[in-house]
Amino acid sequence: MTTVERDLPTDEAHDLLELVRDIARQRLVPQVDDYEDKGTFPREVFTEIGRAGLLSLPYPEEFGGGAQPYTVYLQVLEELSAAWGAVGLGASVHTLSCYPVAQFGSDAQRERWLPGMLSGEQLGAYCLSEPTSGSDAAALRTRAVLSADGATYDVTGTKAWITHGGVADFYNLMVRTADTGPHGISCLLADADTPGLSAAPPERKMGYRSSQTAQILLDGATVDSGRRIGEEGQGFTIALSALDSGRLGIAACAVGIAQAALESAVAYAKERQQFGQRIIDFQGLSFMLADMATQVAAARELYLAAARRRDAGQSFSVQAAMAKLFATDTCMKVTTDAVQVLGGAGYVRDFPVERWFREAKVLQIVEGTNQVQRLVIGRHLAKH
Amino acid sequence: MTTVERDLPTDEAHDLLELVRDIARQRLVPQVDDYEDKGTFPREVFTEIGRAGLLSLPYPEEFGGGAQPYTVYLQVLEELSAAWGAVGLGASVHTLSCYPVAQFGSDAQRERWLPGMLSGEQLGAYCLSEPTSGSDAAALRTRAVLSADGATYDVTGTKAWITHGGVADFYNLMVRTADTGPHGISCLLADADTPGLSAAPPERKMGYRSSQTAQILLDGATVDSGRRIGEEGQGFTIALSALDSGRLGIAACAVGIAQAALESAVAYAKERQQFGQRIIDFQGLSFMLADMATQVAAARELYLAAARRRDAGQSFSVQAAMAKLFATDTCMKVTTDAVQVLGGAGYVRDFPVERWFREAKVLQIVEGTNQVQRLVIGRHLAKH
Amino acid sequence: MTTVERDLPTDEAHDLLELVRDIARQRLVPQVDDYEDKGTFPREVFTEIGRAGLLSLPYPEEFGGGAQPYTVYLQVLEELSAAWGAVGLGASVHTLSCYPVAQFGSDAQRERWLPGMLSGEQLGAYCLSEPTSGSDAAALRTRAVLSADGATYDVTGTKAWITHGGVADFYNLMVRTADTGPHGISCLLADADTPGLSAAPPERKMGYRSSQTAQILLDGATVDSGRRIGEEGQGFTIALSALDSGRLGIAACAVGIAQAALESAVAYAKERQQFGQRIIDFQGLSFMLADMATQVAAARELYLAAARRRDAGQSFSVQAAMAKLFATDTCMKVTTDAVQVLGGAGYVRDFPVERWFREAKVLQIVEGTNQVQRLVIGRHLAKH
Amino acid sequence: MTTVERDLPTDEAHDLLELVRDIARQRLVPQVDDYEDKGTFPREVFTEIGRAGLLSLPYPEEFGGGAQPYTVYLQVLEELSAAWGAVGLGASVHTLSCYPVAQFGSDAQRERWLPGMLSGEQLGAYCLSEPTSGSDAAALRTRAVLSADGATYDVTGTKAWITHGGVADFYNLMVRTADTGPHGISCLLADADTPGLSAAPPERKMGYRSSQTAQILLDGATVDSGRRIGEEGQGFTIALSALDSGRLGIAACAVGIAQAALESAVAYAKERQQFGQRIIDFQGLSFMLADMATQVAAARELYLAAARRRDAGQSFSVQAAMAKLFATDTCMKVTTDAVQVLGGAGYVRDFPVERWFREAKVLQIVEGTNQVQRLVIGRHLAKH
Repeated sequence: MTTVERDLPTDEAHDLLELVRDIARQRLVPQVDDYEDKGTFPREVFTEIGRAGLLSLPYPEEFGGGAQPYTVYLQVLEELSAAWGAVGLGASVHTLSCYPVAQFGSDAQRERWLPGMLSGEQLGAYCLSEPTSGSDAAALRTRAVLSADGATYDVTGTKAWITHGGVADFYNLMVRTADTGPHGISCLLADADTPGLSAAPPERKMGYRSSQTAQILLDGATVDSGRRIGEEGQGFTIALSALDSGRLGIAACAVGIAQAALESAVAYAKERQQFGQRIIDFQGLSFMLADMATQVAAARELYLAAARRRDAGQSFSVQAAMAKLFATDTCMKVTTDAVQVLGGAGYVRDFPVERWFREAKVLQIVEGTNQVQRLVIGRHLAKH
Repeated sequence: MTTVERDLPTDEAHDLLELVRDIARQRLVPQVDDYEDKGTFPREVFTEIGRAGLLSLPYPEEFGGGAQPYTVYLQVLEELSAAWGAVGLGASVHTLSCYPVAQFGSDAQRERWLPGMLSGEQLGAYCLSEPTSGSDAAALRTRAVLSADGATYDVTGTKAWITHGGVADFYNLMVRTADTGPHGISCLLADADTPGLSAAPPERKMGYRSSQTAQILLDGATVDSGRRIGEEGQGFTIALSALDSGRLGIAACAVGIAQAALESAVAYAKERQQFGQRIIDFQGLSFMLADMATQVAAARELYLAAARRRDAGQSFSVQAAMAKLFATDTCMKVTTDAVQVLGGAGYVRDFPVERWFREAKVLQIVEGTNQVQRLVIGRHLAKH
Repeated sequence: MTTVERDLPTDEAHDLLELVRDIARQRLVPQVDDYEDKGTFPREVFTEIGRAGLLSLPYPEEFGGGAQPYTVYLQVLEELSAAWGAVGLGASVHTLSCYPVAQFGSDAQRERWLPGMLSGEQLGAYCLSEPTSGSDAAALRTRAVLSADGATYDVTGTKAWITHGGVADFYNLMVRTADTGPHGISCLLADADTPGLSAAPPERKMGYRSSQTAQILLDGATVDSGRRIGEEGQGFTIALSALDSGRLGIAACAVGIAQAALESAVAYAKERQQFGQRIIDFQGLSFMLADMATQVAAARELYLAAARRRDAGQSFSVQAAMAKLFATDTCMKVTTDAVQVLGGAGYVRDFPVERWFREAKVLQIVEGTNQVQRLVIGRHLAKH
Repeated sequence: MTTVERDLPTDEAHDLLELVRDIARQRLVPQVDDYEDKGTFPREVFTEIGRAGLLSLPYPEEFGGGAQPYTVYLQVLEELSAAWGAVGLGASVHTLSCYPVAQFGSDAQRERWLPGMLSGEQLGAYCLSEPTSGSDAAALRTRAVLSADGATYDVTGTKAWITHGGVADFYNLMVRTADTGPHGISCLLADADTPGLSAAPPERKMGYRSSQTAQILLDGATVDSGRRIGEEGQGFTIALSALDSGRLGIAACAVGIAQAALESAVAYAKERQQFGQRIIDFQGLSFMLADMATQVAAARELYLAAARRRDAGQSFSVQAAMAKLFATDTCMKVTTDAVQVLGGAGYVRDFPVERWFREAKVLQIVEGTNQVQRLVIGRHLAKH
């Protein structure tokens, strides 16, 4: 957790952040190294934070959600991410996985599935990318064929880079139901035990090793047509809409890691002595820390401003792209410099900064590479 | 003026910004090139915006102030700066010049001087730097000796880099009244026609040519002791406090220029064709514009967040340093890239981007160089 | 001139560089400010350095050239540029202007024109860009129609951003002789007093004010067909080939300015005292200077490596693009930081750093914008 | 290995580089992943490259050295490092470990030890840092007390961050023989089986996992006084001199990794298709690759220029610091961007770029952090 003095709208939000920092200090920080070393997924930790209400924050209370504004939810993510990257990222991905049914599902679907999702008993995954379509998500090939009686979809294809792949309880599958490009995509909410759905062996990632990432293989998987969220052909709209919110989550995760790295670097620089004084008292290092602190603060304000727009019902797609781009680039730079402040100590597992450095890199890639964010922003500029 | 969609707290603030954009469009933009070419100070423009209430925004209504929060005042500066750099900067400096008497003056002093200042009839200057003391402001040498009867100070020395030097109506003089370092500094509010006070020939600056900058020469200048603001020895406290607010002003001016440069670059890139298409449709250029837009947005949110702290009565000194540092570095980078987008056209006076590029540079220097800002931030990190 | 310890192949080259530094110290540095202030072109200075042999360095001795390798020629440019930007740039442009006839001209053409060109009595210009074709040079529209008897071309169109426009004695005109895109371009060597050839009023540039830049207007200009260099349709090949060499010249000019700015910043930082010590002894500033020095050194080695390839008869097109890109980006960054080191003093005409800062910007634009350089390099990577 | 077209002085050097690329292709690339996964030190690989003459390149032939100039030796390191980071770095460290005896040893010492060292049968380590002295190397505390009869030193202390710690055959120990700061340091060449010398468990590093790094514990270790290299008190001079050369080695290793990462990114971008075309054909990505290629080329030329100075017997200390600083910062940036080009594929072990990214970070830290390099350069600027 961090020591950031936060701007929060309500006493409830203050209490929530206190709770999160307690959980971070007592439950996350003590366990993270062990899980990262072993590379095992901490399912029980998600159960625990789900019970604490941390997996449902921006959703309505009637389905068990926390009814918190995005400005608060994202600061919770920041704290989780600062304590245990895979938990923060997982909370963001799970929240994203609830979005299609929460936003586009029918009343019946919401009543049936949301309570389990929002309690965290059902952990979610979000399946958009495929081996040959990443940035060009609309080119996805996984095919879903409706049965003659309209009762089921027969789904075949491969979804790639799936966070929680193999450990999730439900999968939002973006599939092709027609050959009409982005307009031929639909969203199916598949159960983990769907026949014909399986997970490939986990990816051997550089970081976030306690977060399981895997391909989801769909080999004639049978999904009830009643599990389609929204209309046929509405899938890409759902996906893009979810991504806007998901990008804010990634921005917050990135700021959390950057803040943690900054605080570790400052703490080390106040302890470590060279040439008869604390290294933080050398101006060269101090200026580097000042730049790091400034960039982290700017990144936080940028995502909070985007979140305020979302909370106010304004368009925030471009602002979310900017926040994701800026926060993750900042995170990469700040963690690189944080390792530098620690020197050799920063390069070994005795301190968490080398982990944050490894984690930072993937945040520039997920939920739209930073090249895709620039595409989104650039197109907006070209139009307006 | 800019096309930014602004987050404003009240209808009054909305109307104010509308007014400012009207003035910018009708009065500032049409005149700026002529004044910059001639290098003459537009005193009458300050009279005009003073009458419109733009030189008193953050001060209390009882003395003629606008009673606006800093979040609003700074966005006004942004718009003025985008239209005419020297006017935006001048409004910031004038507002800073009113700060000592407004914040530290006695009731009698406030009643006597503030109305004239806030109406803009009396234009102000702020004199801290000296030829041999810039970043090390506390080393100032200008000496003020109290007469035997305590009625007047006899002031001798040279103040350097004074915005409005030679055109201001009053000067806040930071002077040495005792040899006790920062604790021996006092603040005198001198009238422009003070005997013994004169201005050196204006500096031949690279930019902001319509803003007059000059040394103020004090050769036994006689200042009534009743014009001392605060106690003897309180001058450096006043100066630092003023600077915190002044830095927010510079940050806003920088964001205004960066925004203007961004908008000019986008407009040009949408018109200019090469290789059979608009150059904004080339991804290399588009990504550069996306980065520019993102940085400008981050800079704005950072100064607004600092301003919210000021408006809420919280400490904001470190946040102001961060905002000044980040906004002016961003302004330098964005204007450099904006010239690049225009190519040869960006290098000639036919377009304003070359002016903004020249203006940007000094913002990294004034009211504490960006090295001094890093010092402020670094010291804060080392202590907390 | 600079204090760089140079790696030079011969005693003759050492003597040459000594001569150049003498000329720089005695003739260029004392005059530059005056010419830049007035914005007048120093034709007599070019005559002078032409007589000293500095306008013909990389060309064969038989036509009056200096027969120097490019590694030496470019270091001469560096010194000229460090002393007086417009003279360094002008020497580079003149050398470029001799290239078509030297490399592609017939024996008769070389004998007729080169001696006057290489002596500097005839100053040259190079006309490729047009108002609507800059980066997309092959889209040029200036049309040259051969007369029925084949004796003359009738040339109509406008060439833009022409260095030495209006002061040159001869103009290399890249003109369209057929509608076959890049293959329909030819090169004509026009005399300044060609009927129908005139110069528009000079551009009002931000920097390089003593270097005259203007459009060249061709309104039915009559050019003898014997002044065509190379075959019809060979013009674009000539132009690209010239540009490769020209880019090395710009790289050298950029390094010269960056080196001069670095040396000025170091000198100032060793004089200026704050907080009781030289500001160069503050680590924050010292680290900035160290980065500047490192980047300048890297830029120099990069252009020298490309020049060695040229001298060895190897392909150097990609290397020239890299050198131009890196050297000019470095120059922009280093001059921006050099102004910062001087603070307020850096922003006024009392010191040359503000001039170098203004000069740096256009070097990122001329002879292929840095975007075009990235295009050249990127295409090479995509092919090999 | 890389595909760089190299500038080499002799046919012998060409053959040498061919040999190195063959070894890289056939022996290093096929094994690196396995060793890195297991984190085991490939002692036999060093034996193998030692037999091929690659561990003695810049040393005289009379002791079994390769008598190659540094320009050639460093390009060999580049190729080794590109193929297997730990082998390239190890070759650099071993070469550094031979330097004290080769340069400062007596004839007898050279004859006795150099042949075994240069053949690679005896692998070396270099022990300067301690847990409390890194950048401030002169503050080292490991104490060596000469016995009454002058026959042996009794050595007690801890050396930290020792490459080859625990696997080396000999250790250059920088120890304190007098309390006169840098002048009280001496250099002892200790055998691995010295009584009282042991290695702590290896550090758990983020990268270079097949290169063993460990503390060397000296608990009353007994070293013959005949194993002292140079005079008592000459140790720090030896250490600094060795570091100058060692920094060139690190620069070359960094360029090798950056080049490998660039080539991998280009290859991937030519294969990977999105939106119906190769991603290298998107200008946004292509410009990034162009910048990467340019920076790598500049880094290479900078270290080669420093090496030419060394080969010519000129001072090269500042140039080595610049080369180390620039090459390793470039390596960090280029590997970060290379992972970005590959996207998700760049984040998993299926491709080597994630390894290069992890390796890059430590190069900014070893043999003088990049802050120390800036210190070296900055001090030079302040003096000259």
